[in-house]
This record gives sequence, C-alpha cells and structure tokens, in this order.
Amino acid sequence: MDFKTYPEFSTRYPLLLTTFMKRPARLYPNETGVVYRNPDNGQYLRFTWQEWYERTCRLANVLKGPLGVKPGKPGEPGDRIATLALNHHWHLELYYAVPCSGAVLHPINMRLSLDHITYTIKHAEDKIIFFDDFSLPQLESIFDQIKGTVEKFVYLSDKPGKPKTKIEPLFEYEELIAKQPPEFTWPNLSEDNYATCCYTTGTTGLPKGVMFTHRQLYLLALHVVIRNFYNSDPALPQIGERNIPLFNVPLFHVHGWGYPFFSVFGANKIVMPGRFTPEGFCELVQTEKVTSSGLVPTMLAMLMEYKELDKYDLSSLANITVGGAALPLGLKNKAEKVIPGFSATSGYGMTETAPSTINAFVKKFMHDWPKEDLDEVRVKTGVPVPGLEVEVVDDVGKPVPQNNESIGEIVIRGPWVMEKYYKDPEKTAEVWRDGWFHTGDVAKVDEDGYIIIADRMSDMIRSGAEMVPTVLLENLTATADFVLEATYVGVPDAIWGERPMVLVTLVPDADKTEDDIIKFLETEGVDKGKITRWMLPDYVVITDDIPKTSVGKFNKIHIKARMEYFLNKAKKIRQD
Amino acid sequence: MDFKTYPEFSTRYPLLLTTFMKRPARLYPNETGVVYRNPDNGQYLRFTWQEWYERTCRLANVLKGPLGVKPGKPGEPGDRIATLALNHHWHLELYYAVPCSGAVLHPINMRLSLDHITYTIKHAEDKIIFFDDFSLPQLESIFDQIKGTVEKFVYLSDKPGKPKTKIEPLFEYEELIAKQPPEFTWPNLSEDNYATCCYTTGTTGLPKGVMFTHRQLYLLALHVVIRNFYNSDPALPQIGERNIPLFNVPLFHVHGWGYPFFSVFGANKIVMPGRFTPEGFCELVQTEKVTSSGLVPTMLAMLMEYKELDKYDLSSLANITVGGAALPLGLKNKAEKVIPGFSATSGYGMTETAPSTINAFVKKFMHDWPKEDLDEVRVKTGVPVPGLEVEVVDDVGKPVPQNNESIGEIVIRGPWVMEKYYKDPEKTAEVWRDGWFHTGDVAKVDEDGYIIIADRMSDMIRSGAEMVPTVLLENLTATADFVLEATYVGVPDAIWGERPMVLVTLVPDADKTEDDIIKFLETEGVDKGKITRWMLPDYVVITDDIPKTSVGKFNKIHIKARMEYFLNKAKKIRQD
Repeated sequence: MDFKTYPEFSTRYPLLLTTFMKRPARLYPNETGVVYRNPDNGQYLRFTWQEWYERTCRLANVLKGPLGVKPGKPGEPGDRIATLALNHHWHLELYYAVPCSGAVLHPINMRLSLDHITYTIKHAEDKIIFFDDFSLPQLESIFDQIKGTVEKFVYLSDKPGKPKTKIEPLFEYEELIAKQPPEFTWPNLSEDNYATCCYTTGTTGLPKGVMFTHRQLYLLALHVVIRNFYNSDPALPQIGERNIPLFNVPLFHVHGWGYPFFSVFGANKIVMPGRFTPEGFCELVQTEKVTSSGLVPTMLAMLMEYKELDKYDLSSLANITVGGAALPLGLKNKAEKVIPGFSATSGYGMTETAPSTINAFVKKFMHDWPKEDLDEVRVKTGVPVPGLEVEVVDDVGKPVPQNNESIGEIVIRGPWVMEKYYKDPEKTAEVWRDGWFHTGDVAKVDEDGYIIIADRMSDMIRSGAEMVPTVLLENLTATADFVLEATYVGVPDAIWGERPMVLVTLVPDADKTEDDIIKFLETEGVDKGKITRWMLPDYVVITDDIPKTSVGKFNKIHIKARMEYFLNKAKKIRQD
Repeated sequence: MDFKTYPEFSTRYPLLLTTFMKRPARLYPNETGVVYRNPDNGQYLRFTWQEWYERTCRLANVLKGPLGVKPGKPGEPGDRIATLALNHHWHLELYYAVPCSGAVLHPINMRLSLDHITYTIKHAEDKIIFFDDFSLPQLESIFDQIKGTVEKFVYLSDKPGKPKTKIEPLFEYEELIAKQPPEFTWPNLSEDNYATCCYTTGTTGLPKGVMFTHRQLYLLALHVVIRNFYNSDPALPQIGERNIPLFNVPLFHVHGWGYPFFSVFGANKIVMPGRFTPEGFCELVQTEKVTSSGLVPTMLAMLMEYKELDKYDLSSLANITVGGAALPLGLKNKAEKVIPGFSATSGYGMTETAPSTINAFVKKFMHDWPKEDLDEVRVKTGVPVPGLEVEVVDDVGKPVPQNNESIGEIVIRGPWVMEKYYKDPEKTAEVWRDGWFHTGDVAKVDEDGYIIIADRMSDMIRSGAEMVPTVLLENLTATADFVLEATYVGVPDAIWGERPMVLVTLVPDADKTEDDIIKFLETEGVDKGKITRWMLPDYVVITDDIPKTSVGKFNKIHIKARMEYFLNKAKKIRQD
C-alpha cells in the first residue's frame, strides 16, 4: 500500500525555530520588528519584520552559497558557525539563519578569558566567526591561535568597508547579503537537528560544550511564555504581543535567557542596545516606549548614579526586573522611587538547562497581597517552569520534606535539559545519574513548594552535621543598607570541620565595622528567626576586592586559594 | 560504550498529558480544583486538586486491575474506553486516567443519532463504556446492538447503588475506585501513544474516526494558551491561573475545545454544570465566582429569557464569548446590557484538527480601537493559532491574494492536525494531498490577513462565474432584529447554474414579510456596500422548520433533498 499519511505534517510535524521566525513577518510585515541603537555613536537602525525576515533569508543564501556551510542531521551537528558579538540585529539574524538552515550557532561568551575563548572555538571546531567592531580587538589577539581552525571571518558593522586587520579571509556582512535574493526555501529539518552550541563558564575547569536541538529550544520558549501567563504577579503586565522588551541580557549568555526565541515568536518589537549603558538605556526606553527589561544589580547601580536620569521619560516601563545576584536594600529602595514598574526577582538556571528552570512566581492566592509580602515571594528562588520536573533530593535520591529547612541537591529533567556534554562522555556520566540531571546546587523547599537555592555543592559550608545556608546568609547580609556586596566561604576548623567567613564590601563612605555586621545579622537575622545563632560567621573581612568570575559571580575557588590572605585581614568573632 | 545519556529525559522527553495532570496537584494540592453541580437536584460536589488527582490514580488502578484495560504503543492503539456522559468530575477523571495509562479515550457524541452512536461504538471497538444517569436511557435503547462489542459498563452517579437496567455486566464507579489505592505509577509512555479517539458528526455520510496522540494534544494545548496570551483583545482578561472557567462546551465535542487540557495544566478552578441550564449557569457563576465561559446563541437566548436572571450576582464574569453560529443583533444588544464582559467571537475548527485552528484575534495595533470596531474584528473568523500553517488556496494550490474577495479552500498542517482517519485509507487520501490537509471549507483573506470563512465547498452556491458568499449573507440576514435564523442554499437555474434561496425563521410575533427581508438586505447590505445586488436571493422562504443536523447546524443536504417543498413555500423575487 503506497498510501501516504503525511505524519511529517501532522503527528510528527517538527518543532523548529523556523516556525518562530516566520510568524511576525506573516502577521505584522510592515510593523517595526527590530531596533538597534549603536552605543558608540547613538545612531539608530530600524527594520520592519518583513525587512528583518528578508535579511535573514539573504543571510541563509550567503551561508548556503558563498560560505559553503553544511547542514547536519539528527545526532550529527552541521557546521558550527560562531558569533563574537553584542546585542544587535545582525546577531538576531544569525540566531535564526544559522539553525534554520541546518547548521549550529555557537554564540561565543566574550566575557570568558582569551584562553577559554580560544579553547571553545577549537573545541567546537568553529568554521566561521561573525564578529563586530566591539570584538575586533579580542579576535585579533587570538587570531594566531585559531586561524588553523576557523576558515572564514565575517565583519558585522554599520561602517562601510572592511577594517584594517590581520584577520583573514575576511568578508563583510552587508556586502555578502546585498548580492543574495530576499527569499529562501527553508529546509524541512528534523526537530532533532542541533541548533545551538553553548559553553559553560568553566569556573572549576575548562568550559564544557552543550548542544541543543530545535525541539528543545522550541519547547523551552513555549513553556517560558506559559510560565509568564500563569504567573499571578500583579507587577507582571500581561500584554503579550504589545510587550516591547529591551534586550540587556547578552545573546552570548545561554540564548540570552530565551528572549531571541519567545520575543520573535511573540512578534514583540525588539530593542537592541548593543551593550548596556545608562544613557543608551534611558534614550531607548523613551524613544521606543520600552515596556520591559532585565538588569543585573551592577547595571541598576550605574543607572541610579546616572546624572541625566530624570531628563528622560521612562513612563512606558511596566516591568523592570533585577536578578542574577542579591540586591542591596538601599539600591532597591532608591530604584523603586525612580523607575516605574521596578521589582526585584529571582531565578535559577544554567547552561545545561538552556537556561530556564526555576523562577520567581506569585501563586494565584497571593495576587492581592501587600507589596512587602509579594517582594518576599519574588526573591524566593521560585517554582519550576511548567513542563519541567525539578526535585530537591537527599543523598539517596529521595525528595526532601517541604519544611523550609532540609537541604538537598537540585535534580532536573525535562524537554530542554541537555542530553550530553559535547565530546565529553565522562563529564556527562557525572551529571546524568538515575534518570536525573544533577545540578550540583543545593536548595531547600518551603511549605508553599518554593525551591530556595542554598549554594553550590562544592561551595557548601559544613559545620558539624549541619550545612550552612550560604545564599540565605548572603542575601540577608546584602539587605544591610551599608553593605554593597557580601559572600560566605568555609574556613577549616578543627572541631566543626568548617566555620563560615563573610567577605563584605561596604557602600562608599559607610562608617561601619566588622562588629556592625555581626550586630546587623543578630538583630535582623537571629532575633527575627531568619537564621539561628550557629550560622553567624566566625570571621568577618571588610574588603574591596572580592574575587569574581568572568560573569561577575563570586569566585569561591579563588577566595579559598587566597584563604591565608583573607584570614589575615579578618576579624575573628568570639562565639558565645 | 555502554554510556547512557538519557535522551528520554532530555532531548526526547515525551510530551504527555500526564504532565498536565500532575501540575495542579503539585502546585495547589489543597485548593478547590473541580466543582460539579448536578443540574437535576442542584447538589454540589467539590474536590481539591489533591483529591481529584487521587481519584484519578484510583481510576487508573481500576483500569489496570479489575477492568483489565490494555495499553497501546505508537501506531497501535490501546483498548478503546468510551464515555457517554455530560460535563462532570467523573468525565474529567476519565479524560486523564485513560490516556495517561496508555489506553484510548473515546468520548461518544451523545447528540448523534442512535444509529450513528451505535456505529461509532462498533467502529472504535469500544471495550468499556462509562455512562451517567443522563445517558442511561440512550444506552439502554442501543444495548442489544452493542453488547457483542462492549465487554463492560461502568455507571457514574452520585446516587448510591446501581440503577435498574438490562445493561450488564454493570459496575459502579464509586465502588470500584473506593477499593483502590490513591497513588499510581504512571507509565513512561511514548508521546506517540494514541490518547483519544473522536468521530466527525457525519452530516454527509457515516461518522469518521480520528485518533490523536499525546504529543498532538499537548502541543494543541500549549499553542492555544499562547494564542490567548498574544491576543490583544481588551475584553480578554489576562488572568492566567486565576481564570475560573465554566465548562459549557460538552466534553464529547472534540475534546471540549481543548478546555480539559489547558485548564488542568493551568490549575484553573474548573466548574462543571453537567449540562447547560439558565439557573445552573447563574447559580454557578454566583457561587463559584466564574470568570469566563463560552455559549452558543441558543444558550444565550435561553439565558436572556430566564426570568430570575437579575436575582443573581454575575459580576465575577469577565469574559463571556458567543460562538458557533451567527449572533442575531437583537440578542447581542440585549446580552451586552445584562451580562458583564460579554462579547461575540468567532472561530473555526473541526474534529480532524482537534479542533483549534483559526480564531478571533485582536492585533496589537487594534488594542485601543473603539468597541464597535473591535466587535467587527472579533467576528471575522480570525487568524491561525500560532504554530499552525493555514493557507487559503486556489485550484492549483496557490495562496489567494489578501484582497477580501478572492475565494479558495482552507488547507492546514501542523502538530495537531490528524494524520489519518481510523481504518479508512480512502477517505484519508481524499483530504491529505500535496502535504496539506484539505478542509473542504472555503474562505477569503482580507488585507489584514484575517481568514473569513465563506462556506463548505459542497454548500457553495455558484452563480455564473461567481461564488455566492453564503456565510456573509447568513450573518447579514441574522442581524435583522426580526430574524431569528437564516440560511442560504443554491436553487438550480437554467441561465446562472444556481441562484440563492434564503430560508428564514422570524422571531415570535414578528409582523414581517418576504419583501421586508429583501428590503433589509438592500438597505443594510447593498446600500452599505457589504454585498452587491447580484447576491440578493431569488427566493425567500419564511418557515419554522429549517432542517438541522444533530449538533444544530443547518442541514443543507436535507434542505436540498426537500427543494420541491421549499420552492412551493417560497416567494419568487423579481430581479431588477
């Protein structure tokens, strides 16, 4: 029977990023889709969805034709095409043209060390690198190490012509696409085709590569949109397609947290700042009527210190969230006064999970709670994204009780969790056990089912039989208005195994001592039942140079490596 | 290398209804999940999500143990388990326990003729039928025809004991589940396992069976939620989990339009009325603070005539939509005054598409339009659900221009379009051609990309080289305040091939004639540019008995079969 039932167009219709790419051009061809403001000269470039789609088609023709990019198939990645670039329309065009034509996009994390950048390029075997004016010096400095691996380089710029550089063979993006037709027949890929390749930041060793399939990214995006729809946070405006996001999260950070996927599918006008600057932020919000954006505390601090802030109309903002690190209370109070729709939030994710897993979430019965109560809910790490299985388990894999106390490891499985590290079966076997991906992060679960991150397994402080809830202590300490940032590490102890040390940076001109920090922890922590006395640090260090990783997280490995130095600076606190 | 990468928990994590079922019990175990009001005695039954989940687990144990239900595998359906039942918690328990344990749920359409019900039971080879008090007489009258096919019958009721009936072997639901444990280890199914089996209403022949996989229903639900999130209709409250839907659409109508899937995944409190009654509707809205519901025009008319309406507090209603048939203008005006959040809407779907395909949709730039303009947008049939490919194509498969004029056939493909008719390769080959599912329905596309249904291919009226836009005429005629309902069919004509005849039922006590109808069409249609003169009907019939199908649609086949009778009743209109 040669009867054809077309499963590939029904039961097996593939979940491809191509579907996301096509939607806005079909629905809103003549509306502005992507806006880029060059942070160096303040010039704007604007594209309707139709224009953006046609540029993406031209790029696909370039990849297939002149650049000779080879598509892959399930289990066999196509050519790896890297970007070393900021947030702009070129980057978004590459985010679709590369995967949708069957190749693998590798957005290089330009905040890694040059050694690690070189390593990831060689490990991924990148065939082409697309780079911009901003990354040109970086690329030049590693060119000699990678020229045997990378075959071609493409320059993304609004300046005409090519830059003066030793990098070669060098092509110019705009010249390449101008010669190509504005339509492209997108291939009928399998949803199991690899679409992207991301690398971990490698704080504990070399970066590890992870490849994601179209299906994984498609399902990630759908579930994240649904998570937003279900969230009953009154501060989260449910404006669907009318949302106008400003992309501050770099596209080279684990898929820019998913924004390039769900914002395109949602036909949201996308505003690209290149990189974050306070004046770029303010001007774009005013000009483009931006409704939402995410910031890390450092960006927020820069914004609060920006002298011209009150000259801009920021009234279109409906939802500004701050995540990524504990938010100092003083900064929070100030931001709430100045920025419309400001709220602190929390979340948890990693390269291996594409990255969304656990996020701030206001449950339906909390919708009408007073703001202070909601603020507390918002900074509990959160609940799993719908569709994902997340558990916090003890040593034998049993879920810990929901008592806001018992601590266990976070394990995850679901449609967008990585299958394996690229070319690294040993590391894969370390994290995939018993049908669960083991994150190596520890958390507790409260009575309402909120998962609250405690720490990295390797960063845990073990005092006697107890584990010190480091993140809880860090968040508590950061709420002191004289504290800029704070982190905790374990100091070896003959009796207890380990005892906690806190490293604190004070806000400028704060006239406070180590004892003030302890006093704050006693009155705001112990007396209010948030922590118990044994958790108080034995050592307090006030310092301006807490070691950090390339992405701005506290580097506890480096702190421990310089333990001697910090202990010398520390004040030893006598425990009662 | 025996290294295991667990694709079944990552890249190939199966999309199963099981994920939907588990979410509310995990997130809101102690909140009310399902409320059922027995329409015959006004008694309420309430279940928390944990209770509902445990009942569903008990039912799964019953299916696996005492009832001996066999699961299937991809391409090979498990036992077919049928329901002949209204909208209540039992039905919702069956909606999950059956598919999630690997068998196939067949919700029998109890509005079909007894012959067709019998046919679908035999064609599906249903092994067990779950029925309620309401369907008991129906089941008794076909028992002799189906007893050779169906092995067991299970009675769903809040009355204790079994009814007096010849139906056997007969089991009682509550007794069965009471003996089983409240937990169940749900099997790791493939997402390609069949989950449900639905039948078309068979207006043009015998009902045709369609089976849907877990993957299809999962993706249907996700995309419909996202469609709602993107819709910029100000009348659509974006309240996510806080939505409290009243299920008026029967669960035996093509998955109750998807509500049992996305309302459970969304942990919405679900309100079940058994069947629609005006007092049940009003009482449930008041008691349960219902926020949304869908009605067909007949239900709305009953509600408007309900004497006690103003005694109820309906203020919780935020979104009442009317669809399914043209809404008479008088009824619309009245409803807008009385029912909070009332708006007319439109949509298009069919059994073969599970059913959601095209729906009313307010584009983002229309959000602030005046209500009258929005009302016009809302009743254009709509735009495709995101993720689905829908085209309107001419005879050679080319999309028609978006000019609000050119007419073509609607063709569809996408993740939740049926793969094939069950046991019917010939009928399947008729609809699946060139990689598209052919709906047999015709439409035009306007300048904004809205697809506007014109008619069934087989119901089209062809006058000369032109196709008469039947649905447009029907909708226009129904807006006359003296018209209750109206339909158009083609009458054979020596010169033109066909000419239109309109059949009209007047509202009670309307003192109007055939000429009044023509006059209305001239002033409201021709003069206002909505139709052109050649579209005016040649024959007008005022009658109280327009033939209808089992689901209340105009039965044009029956009208044509009785053409002689209607022509005798018709007034022939002289064309100028």
